[in-house]
Amino acid sequence: MAEDVLAAVRTAPGRTEVRSFAMPEVPDDGALLKVEVAGICGTDVKMYGKPPFDAPVIMGHENVGTIAHAGPAFTRRHGVAEGDRVFVEHYVGCFHCEWCHAGEYRHCENTDWRTNPDARRYGYTSADNPYHLWGGFAQYMYLPWNAVLHAVPDGVSAELAGLVTPLSNGIEWALVAAGVGYDSTVLVQGPGQQGLSQVVACKQAGASTIIVAGTTRDAARLQLAKDLGADHVVDVTVEDPLTVVRDVTRGKGVDVVLDCTAGAGTAPVLLGVDALTRREGVMVVQGELAAFPDFPLKKITEKAITIKSARGHSYRSCELALAQLASARFPLDRLATHSFGLDQVDHAIRAVGGEVEEDVVHVSLLPWAGVR
Amino acid sequence: MAEDVLAAVRTAPGRTEVRSFAMPEVPDDGALLKVEVAGICGTDVKMYGKPPFDAPVIMGHENVGTIAHAGPAFTRRHGVAEGDRVFVEHYVGCFHCEWCHAGEYRHCENTDWRTNPDARRYGYTSADNPYHLWGGFAQYMYLPWNAVLHAVPDGVSAELAGLVTPLSNGIEWALVAAGVGYDSTVLVQGPGQQGLSQVVACKQAGASTIIVAGTTRDAARLQLAKDLGADHVVDVTVEDPLTVVRDVTRGKGVDVVLDCTAGAGTAPVLLGVDALTRREGVMVVQGELAAFPDFPLKKITEKAITIKSARGHSYRSCELALAQLASARFPLDRLATHSFGLDQVDHAIRAVGGEVEEDVVHVSLLPWAGVR
Amino acid sequence: MAEDVLAAVRTAPGRTEVRSFAMPEVPDDGALLKVEVAGICGTDVKMYGKPPFDAPVIMGHENVGTIAHAGPAFTRRHGVAEGDRVFVEHYVGCFHCEWCHAGEYRHCENTDWRTNPDARRYGYTSADNPYHLWGGFAQYMYLPWNAVLHAVPDGVSAELAGLVTPLSNGIEWALVAAGVGYDSTVLVQGPGQQGLSQVVACKQAGASTIIVAGTTRDAARLQLAKDLGADHVVDVTVEDPLTVVRDVTRGKGVDVVLDCTAGAGTAPVLLGVDALTRREGVMVVQGELAAFPDFPLKKITEKAITIKSARGHSYRSCELALAQLASARFPLDRLATHSFGLDQVDHAIRAVGGEVEEDVVHVSLLPWAGVR
Amino acid sequence: MAEDVLAAVRTAPGRTEVRSFAMPEVPDDGALLKVEVAGICGTDVKMYGKPPFDAPVIMGHENVGTIAHAGPAFTRRHGVAEGDRVFVEHYVGCFHCEWCHAGEYRHCENTDWRTNPDARRYGYTSADNPYHLWGGFAQYMYLPWNAVLHAVPDGVSAELAGLVTPLSNGIEWALVAAGVGYDSTVLVQGPGQQGLSQVVACKQAGASTIIVAGTTRDAARLQLAKDLGADHVVDVTVEDPLTVVRDVTRGKGVDVVLDCTAGAGTAPVLLGVDALTRREGVMVVQGELAAFPDFPLKKITEKAITIKSARGHSYRSCELALAQLASARFPLDRLATHSFGLDQVDHAIRAVGGEVEEDVVHVSLLPWAGVR
Repeated sequence: MAEDVLAAVRTAPGRTEVRSFAMPEVPDDGALLKVEVAGICGTDVKMYGKPPFDAPVIMGHENVGTIAHAGPAFTRRHGVAEGDRVFVEHYVGCFHCEWCHAGEYRHCENTDWRTNPDARRYGYTSADNPYHLWGGFAQYMYLPWNAVLHAVPDGVSAELAGLVTPLSNGIEWALVAAGVGYDSTVLVQGPGQQGLSQVVACKQAGASTIIVAGTTRDAARLQLAKDLGADHVVDVTVEDPLTVVRDVTRGKGVDVVLDCTAGAGTAPVLLGVDALTRREGVMVVQGELAAFPDFPLKKITEKAITIKSARGHSYRSCELALAQLASARFPLDRLATHSFGLDQVDHAIRAVGGEVEEDVVHVSLLPWAGVR
Repeated sequence: MAEDVLAAVRTAPGRTEVRSFAMPEVPDDGALLKVEVAGICGTDVKMYGKPPFDAPVIMGHENVGTIAHAGPAFTRRHGVAEGDRVFVEHYVGCFHCEWCHAGEYRHCENTDWRTNPDARRYGYTSADNPYHLWGGFAQYMYLPWNAVLHAVPDGVSAELAGLVTPLSNGIEWALVAAGVGYDSTVLVQGPGQQGLSQVVACKQAGASTIIVAGTTRDAARLQLAKDLGADHVVDVTVEDPLTVVRDVTRGKGVDVVLDCTAGAGTAPVLLGVDALTRREGVMVVQGELAAFPDFPLKKITEKAITIKSARGHSYRSCELALAQLASARFPLDRLATHSFGLDQVDHAIRAVGGEVEEDVVHVSLLPWAGVR
Repeated sequence: MAEDVLAAVRTAPGRTEVRSFAMPEVPDDGALLKVEVAGICGTDVKMYGKPPFDAPVIMGHENVGTIAHAGPAFTRRHGVAEGDRVFVEHYVGCFHCEWCHAGEYRHCENTDWRTNPDARRYGYTSADNPYHLWGGFAQYMYLPWNAVLHAVPDGVSAELAGLVTPLSNGIEWALVAAGVGYDSTVLVQGPGQQGLSQVVACKQAGASTIIVAGTTRDAARLQLAKDLGADHVVDVTVEDPLTVVRDVTRGKGVDVVLDCTAGAGTAPVLLGVDALTRREGVMVVQGELAAFPDFPLKKITEKAITIKSARGHSYRSCELALAQLASARFPLDRLATHSFGLDQVDHAIRAVGGEVEEDVVHVSLLPWAGVR
Repeated sequence: MAEDVLAAVRTAPGRTEVRSFAMPEVPDDGALLKVEVAGICGTDVKMYGKPPFDAPVIMGHENVGTIAHAGPAFTRRHGVAEGDRVFVEHYVGCFHCEWCHAGEYRHCENTDWRTNPDARRYGYTSADNPYHLWGGFAQYMYLPWNAVLHAVPDGVSAELAGLVTPLSNGIEWALVAAGVGYDSTVLVQGPGQQGLSQVVACKQAGASTIIVAGTTRDAARLQLAKDLGADHVVDVTVEDPLTVVRDVTRGKGVDVVLDCTAGAGTAPVLLGVDALTRREGVMVVQGELAAFPDFPLKKITEKAITIKSARGHSYRSCELALAQLASARFPLDRLATHSFGLDQVDHAIRAVGGEVEEDVVHVSLLPWAGVR
């Protein structure tokens, strides 16, 4: 394997260069993934604009590909063979803490880049570190012994498998965190890839009423929400969402509110508290505000509301997401609206950020496309 | 039954008068409770100072007594006999809504005085309403068909049974809301009757580490916390509670924070968020702030914290509280620090408010004492 | 109201007579239901052939009708008005035991006819008892203060509401007992009204694979199972169901087995144990065998199986069933295959027993039909 | 490391020989445990008398020791250092199946010796396999990359840590399977190491009434049960346990029955069903009977009983057991009644089997004792 590997490297805030890396030597218990698809999400937009550290980084943390070259211990221990298609979690487990022993790699402190500079989380790791290929915006990605893999079922394309991250988040937040299930009524705020994934998760879980709120710019996404099973959509630019919630629920309010806006403003939280049922509702928040200025705590306790934090996915949620994709029960392929090649990473991220394309839902980066 | 009934009536903010009422005629499916003890809590202090409405009210919502006169349908339907000692929930169920069918009378909208002026919640009802005796600061209290009764086990005195309300709240908030159990680590903020009840609930539920925070004024209460089973107490006037939490938990933080301060300030919430374990902690809040000015939402989601609302008790929690009192496993009688007669209601409420007595934990109003 | 009321009375094993009763005087807190539909199930077949006691009984325990005459306390306390359509649980709560305070009227010992001869469970009560009209095979049925009512939503016909009992059992057994939910795989044994209701409950709850097993006689019912959402059906007369389960689940076995055969034989249990996934499966049994002769306990513990008991429904399950019927998401009306008038009770019960009609799923007794 | 390793090898049913093995070469990601204590349980008695296969086996599956020699990858990946004391689960995870990703190594099919002859479960693996040292009845034990380790807290001796297996089973069966918690009432059948561990687990979890049943031979063990917190003990040789249960629970029966007899007879199950509360009780069974001849299925469903299977422990239960041991809240050291050296393995197993010693609770094999 003498070839070189092309990768898009973030070299500065909002700047990307395609660089060439030597193909790494794979140890007995490591492997290389031939990247087919790297999904892009809102976090990428933030990290691209404001990198958390200065080192060059190959971004891309929602990665699907095939096992290209693997040491014999790697294949044996991971139960995979060369050529297998896998989804790779961006979390890399330490496998000896309490969280890793529960499949909750997202909570592993030993492999969190914020607390451990040696961590190797995909898309968040300096390309100067050994093996270099620590992100999906590259033709190959390095898989150490402790990469967390999920076999992609037959019949699920790489592009579809690129939806595992938002869909597993949907399952984790709606089902596990908020307890959406049989006959639940739900308000989803924000019809992006995350909100639309919640619609699917809630629908499959048995929710009887799903309301999705967006703006006029979201017209196509709101239509897609309906096609995926939302019972009602509301354009908050022209309608009062609280009125819609009350009308639809005959004054009761919803059992669950899922905030899938960026989490940057106070309005979704304030609306959510009002939209919830009079007692014992659940709201899942994505808080980006270090100091929320007028948090309605009194109202929250009077309504006996539970607040849960939107925070990634577990191993099990990824498995459920893959099973959902394999079932083809929902037209989830329609979420995959845009794809770009390795030389278009900058454009692709800006597309997710809403700057340069229309009606974006999910953007796939295809590292083998666009390479001259 | 021609006698009259004496009752302490709140006639204006911070004013009480002892008045005489004619003994009500009891219908076939109603009864009269001879009140033995009416407990007083912080809510009484608030309601006494700032009544929610103007009508005269017999306060007292934590009531224990014996069935004095009862219609035959009442005794048959409630499975009680005259002379039986019972604890009466201040919630009065409608018995046909979804909450009442689940034993969650606290959530019943049909009998909530805030939404239904005809509601008959004990301690929150105008004495001008029929039967008049709608509070425990009276020699007798009226029990309609839908009063919610709990049989007091043999061996539990009326004064001890007066602790059911804080103790059932302790069970509800710690066990049900926060999931405290085997090996949990807990920080209880505020060593009043509510906080001390949480200590007992957490200890019995298997918590391995219970830390209680108070101030220098709480010295006797903090000592009582230790006697009830707290592993560590901290006087925040002289020690940094966060440092104590970290030392005791070897840097991990606690699994659960229970805010049993009045809920009026921001400090307990801010401390709680910092004191929680790095991921998936639970904080139970008693929010009195309509607009919390600097709510740390970002930190909450980064730590994947769950926020639950402290909000009364269920039928089952009261039953568990009574069983706990009957077991005599904890010296809960030591919580009953003060008692006053019917002519001392004003003093008794001020004692709970911290104005006029030292080392108050739980105050019992004994309607048959202090009557000339 | 001077008219008489006609009712079908079981006078001896397998014998029914239509008799006339005087219209009861309704007390202030009682009411009369004008019965529209009384559903019939397998338990009726057993009770008809082998009555549990000798007294004359008006059978019919799955009852829907309208509030005909009601005392003012009844309407106020139950939140109903004359003319309202309601489903009446056959359980009648005591409303003071722990179970009734949790909405689990089925477990109430005080109102269980087996332990309390004074109990008034619908369909299981002697017609010699006061008010007489204690079953649905009658034009009117008496509702005491403690009858458990569920409002039937607009748009749900009486005949459809007659399905609440099997459907609420389906919800209780599949969702609550067995934990069927997102992505569950399920084997339902027996495509009668009970098994078909499980199909709907499991489908709505998110089960990804539902297999229904029946016999050649069940051909029409198996087709209906498919129409309701079953993914696979198997005729055990001609196919080995274990082979089908293994093929469909790729060798894994199912997460949950629901035994909806009569519970009288050992074969469904033995098949169920083998059909379950290798570890931590759940089987819901309807055991009729006092001494199961070769119960595979060793295999059950090796597979770490949980066994749950099929046992009626809770208040909440009935509410969920009514919401399901109102949603019209499933063609549940197709379960209502047969209806008969008051003079055909004997025939109707035999039809459920499989003696006299083809392709029976759910049989409705219409007390106002067939009356000359 | 040129020395040899002594190990007790089961060479035939009921036969043991001490043999010498060459010290294995440790790979980069493997290690050797210097065994301090190997606990013995009832399963050893069965496996010793009737080995599941013919190959020579070093038994011993409850193992504690210190990391003696470790490859650098092993220490880094397991977060341990040479000299650390660890408890080693006898389950060895594959780390890529759904169970291993949930910390449920006991359910891993890939490393179960029954389905995979290449599996390396401690105490169940042929000594002919590479590295040979696959059991705790040896001076050293081999630790591959996928051994599951638990750090033993400071202050917990090796002999005490030898109790992790029964104690973690106690936690798993009582807390996780049966849901024992605040105010539960429990009947534990069999006061051996397993039953006594349940007493501790139940007591810590908040059970209000714990009854332990044994025979006259168990006199010392029943006394120990009381010392550990049992509220009542009953010698079934002289008292009717059902009468005791009913007396203690005032006729209600217990919430939970834990069968910690060998699981070989029908009497504990039949007693358990009768001893359970009238509705919704839970029984944990250890079924050894392939065909239970008179299983009371009808009674089980009438009482709405849940049956759970006693089946090992999870990663989390082991952590909780170690925390319990470290807390020193219970005199658990008193369970460690007997210890023997490497040349006494046969005697030690027979002691557990009840053949050769009195008042045995837990037997520790100390591989470095008794070696000449």
